[in-house]
Amino acid sequence: MVGGGIVGLVTAWRAALGGARVTVVDPEPGGGAAQVAAGMLAAVTEPHHGEEALLALGLASARRWPEFAAELGEASGRDLGYRTCGTLAVALDADDRAELRELHALHTRRGLDAQWLTGRECRRLEPMLAPGIRGGLRVEGDHQVDPRRVVGALLVACARAGVEFRRARAARLVVEAERARGVVLADGARLDAARTVLAAGCFSTDLEGLPPEVAVPVRPVKGQVLRLRMDGAYADFLRRTVRAVVRGGSLYLVPRENGELVVGATSEERGRDTTVTAGGVYALLRDAHELLPGITELALTETRAGLRPASPDNAPLLGPTALPGLHLATGHGRNGVLLAPETGAVMAHALAHDALPEAALPFSPRRFTRTHIPEPVL
Amino acid sequence: MVGGGIVGLVTAWRAALGGARVTVVDPEPGGGAAQVAAGMLAAVTEPHHGEEALLALGLASARRWPEFAAELGEASGRDLGYRTCGTLAVALDADDRAELRELHALHTRRGLDAQWLTGRECRRLEPMLAPGIRGGLRVEGDHQVDPRRVVGALLVACARAGVEFRRARAARLVVEAERARGVVLADGARLDAARTVLAAGCFSTDLEGLPPEVAVPVRPVKGQVLRLRMDGAYADFLRRTVRAVVRGGSLYLVPRENGELVVGATSEERGRDTTVTAGGVYALLRDAHELLPGITELALTETRAGLRPASPDNAPLLGPTALPGLHLATGHGRNGVLLAPETGAVMAHALAHDALPEAALPFSPRRFTRTHIPEPVL
Repeated sequence: MVGGGIVGLVTAWRAALGGARVTVVDPEPGGGAAQVAAGMLAAVTEPHHGEEALLALGLASARRWPEFAAELGEASGRDLGYRTCGTLAVALDADDRAELRELHALHTRRGLDAQWLTGRECRRLEPMLAPGIRGGLRVEGDHQVDPRRVVGALLVACARAGVEFRRARAARLVVEAERARGVVLADGARLDAARTVLAAGCFSTDLEGLPPEVAVPVRPVKGQVLRLRMDGAYADFLRRTVRAVVRGGSLYLVPRENGELVVGATSEERGRDTTVTAGGVYALLRDAHELLPGITELALTETRAGLRPASPDNAPLLGPTALPGLHLATGHGRNGVLLAPETGAVMAHALAHDALPEAALPFSPRRFTRTHIPEPVL
Repeated sequence: MVGGGIVGLVTAWRAALGGARVTVVDPEPGGGAAQVAAGMLAAVTEPHHGEEALLALGLASARRWPEFAAELGEASGRDLGYRTCGTLAVALDADDRAELRELHALHTRRGLDAQWLTGRECRRLEPMLAPGIRGGLRVEGDHQVDPRRVVGALLVACARAGVEFRRARAARLVVEAERARGVVLADGARLDAARTVLAAGCFSTDLEGLPPEVAVPVRPVKGQVLRLRMDGAYADFLRRTVRAVVRGGSLYLVPRENGELVVGATSEERGRDTTVTAGGVYALLRDAHELLPGITELALTETRAGLRPASPDNAPLLGPTALPGLHLATGHGRNGVLLAPETGAVMAHALAHDALPEAALPFSPRRFTRTHIPEPVL
């Protein structure tokens, strides 16, 4: 497993539970985008703009989350901060309202549980919302989890399941007889493997030795995220996740039970730069202030930027590539945390059978290779 | 010396150079408001609203700064970041412009060096300024220094001058035979002293045992300050200190030679709370963005809040109190860094003679006691 972020770890854990001998290669296991992510499990309120397959994958993963959280909590002895507090998507003006109405129409067609609320009804649920809120969608099924805790729990669960960790950088893929055979580490050591999984987020492109028929079209999309503290008179500042589209950007506020309030996120194409900028923090505070004016009273405890591994169609790249023995698990973009349970299940299947389960076929990495080879189904 | 912030340290150093045996009592010497302060030495551009004596004190201290910086740099072997880059006070609208014009008229009456500039002239000096700038005052004599470095240098210079440090909290003043005799520490130990100086900033009021005739009317005024980084394409973002009054608050941006850009400051009456708030950071970024729109591109590297020790008339309390043996050196408000050299000189004189030099008489702590006793002059 090249990469010990949330996707690499969940895949390693699930594969190890299925009987595989797994080694995770990462200079800093447990790092990566999940250290920054808010942890919205927003399969329903995430606007998909016609990405039907991705919506279905998100819904499938959301359905897995309760059991996954229980199982991972049990396996690690850790609390994941999994919270079924629901999500409220709100509209700040008439245009937002029209867009949210469209999203609601999609929900209705798909039979998804979402309730239309007037601005007044929104403020009855969340009294700190700005008086100008024009309406909203209440989705009790869109939950949240603390991604830092999830990653911490996965590290423990992996270790308990026999996963080995190699704190090193994987430098080069070993290809012999037209098959991936493992990796060479930065220090020159070679790790042999029957199957190699590339799950290093937006850094997956760094591995040398990938043959031309294996495309890894992921790029970093920078997201700046703030952490605030709700306490004292403001302990009940927000009770459920609130999200909105402000000035074209997706803004969300995720309140944790421990008083942390995560405010995210910018979406910036700046290569691998993870600088927290005055402009990013300013835009998040300005937009959050528009949605919840009282936010000015909360402590600002952390500012941080992470890199989403984005793919050309916003969907992940999962399972076998055109090179036998090489699998991908990357390109999760904004949805890595939501998709973690489904990714673990899909990848465990893919590694056991060298083929994707049927529902995951739209996510084959081969969709980006020039000569598309039909996928075997098992 | 009760208090090892910039004022306590400069007083201790100067007194020790004069031959006194000095012990500084502070749980964390070198901490305090100077760790947050921007270090503007803005005797001229600081609006004083008729505080003539304070203006004169500031000008006297500004005149001392070059030699003081050289001497302290020599004594400590440290670079203080003293920079003679000048200050530009700008007006964002017609009201600001009228106020700046008034300040300029005061400068002219006092013979102070300040030059009126049109908005275009301001932007010629500092091209990143917003196009809407209506005019400004250029004051080449208002310099800057890095307060963290000053405090670091003072710690070294004090130690080299024989000052002793006691890392403890002073709990109670010892008064015997109607004279201050030293302090009792929190652990019960007693330190005897012929003269005790209370220089603990806004915490000076915590010392128990102060007799009723000694008033210490200082209160904390919270200031939130940001630190940004100018580098790469933005290394020349700002060349001199720029300040303005935005929405009634004083905003300043102080560019250091090492690329740090300090943006300050809020003024909040919140007791001893030093929480960095979403609202404080938001207001600073919003106002700075109005002045210098390109600031959004800079990295935000630090957010912090400090407590200014404010007095009822905004001027410091210096020298002997109504209780023989007890001196004060606190209440410097926004001007602690600027006033450090003059404070050191005044206090060294006061400790040697138990009386203030004539120019410092307006700053006697006795101005706040009910029965004002005329000050002896030496």
